[in-house]
Amino acid sequence: MTLFITFEGPDGSGKTTQIQLLAEALTRRGQAALLTREPGGTRIGNAIRTVLHDRAHVEMSLRAEALLYNAARAQLVDEVIRPALAAGTVVLCDRFADSTLAYQGFGYGRNLAELRMLIDYATGGLTPNLTVFLDIDPAEGLRRKRGDADAEWNRMEDKALAFHRAAHAGYLQLAAQEVERWLVVDATQPVASIHASIWQSVSPRLRISESTAPTSQSR
Amino acid sequence: MTLFITFEGPDGSGKTTQIQLLAEALTRRGQAALLTREPGGTRIGNAIRTVLHDRAHVEMSLRAEALLYNAARAQLVDEVIRPALAAGTVVLCDRFADSTLAYQGFGYGRNLAELRMLIDYATGGLTPNLTVFLDIDPAEGLRRKRGDADAEWNRMEDKALAFHRAAHAGYLQLAAQEVERWLVVDATQPVASIHASIWQSVSPRLRISESTAPTSQSR
Repeated sequence: MTLFITFEGPDGSGKTTQIQLLAEALTRRGQAALLTREPGGTRIGNAIRTVLHDRAHVEMSLRAEALLYNAARAQLVDEVIRPALAAGTVVLCDRFADSTLAYQGFGYGRNLAELRMLIDYATGGLTPNLTVFLDIDPAEGLRRKRGDADAEWNRMEDKALAFHRAAHAGYLQLAAQEVERWLVVDATQPVASIHASIWQSVSPRLRISESTAPTSQSR
Repeated sequence: MTLFITFEGPDGSGKTTQIQLLAEALTRRGQAALLTREPGGTRIGNAIRTVLHDRAHVEMSLRAEALLYNAARAQLVDEVIRPALAAGTVVLCDRFADSTLAYQGFGYGRNLAELRMLIDYATGGLTPNLTVFLDIDPAEGLRRKRGDADAEWNRMEDKALAFHRAAHAGYLQLAAQEVERWLVVDATQPVASIHASIWQSVSPRLRISESTAPTSQSR
């Protein structure tokens, strides 16, 4: 029994923290977990990430951007995600295809059907078993990230707040369309509460008993 | 009256030489011409080209490769080709979408319909008015290029000769399917003869009289 779990949400919503907590909870129970992220996660993907996040690349066309995200995604799926799932490892990915739909689709108002076609090509049809959406007001997310002195500030975050708001509304719409796949969590809650909500959704899918839940063990 | 002309053919078939000769012939007659190439032709495209041609990137997945070529293509179309055509400039491009069909499609045996879908997305439907295929046996082309001390040797050229033969056969099939768009020229002819054949095909499309053909002026 393995799972492919993706984490989505505005920047500053705490995805990195929650992925690490979930990975620790899984490995503590003997379940191998692999953490990765988009765009990147591979040598070639990181080279593509550098092109995408270069703040000098203001002339990047929206179609080139969508194709680059999907190129990094294809490399990640083929080189990392599929082999890990085949080996019985739970894969936790920081952003995946839904980010393309939220940001390029809803954010920029690009054709969703065309983007889904690119995603289908890039992933070969691989869909997450569970997608955790860390829900936070985009302005609050950006403010949190800005307050973090170690946070890297990239070209995507320069985009107007209106873009982030449209992407956020898009996430909620995607979640409403596939309620079985999505877990929407209020990301303004304390870190441990968010983790507990995520664990409640993940553990039954892995047939891990609730009695060994990390919230009761680690407190 | 403007034209979008692409040059295709095995490496070492003389595309660069013929593009330069055609550009000179056009500008001599007062017709602005813009030379560009794939992958590359833009700052972002050149960054993508570096990722594609890095010989260390042996792990690159075929889907990532196809998406990267199309990302560079989308940037080139949006940033360079469409604006130039709109300004009345003839655009000469060293490789374009047919290279994807020939190499990724026929060469690797990937699904042509999927590749056409990516190309349609990347180009927004822009198709060349004329595609010049410089026809040479792939082994002879590679031998020529190897004999050229200045030629850069890249990852694509490491692929087995069988791959290049399959791509070559694919080019001929594409040309046979769209005879109006393609001009197939024997690339083993002398440089001036090849140029004359190309000029004979280009000049009527630009309504330039044959009497001012460059072969008679420049000899």
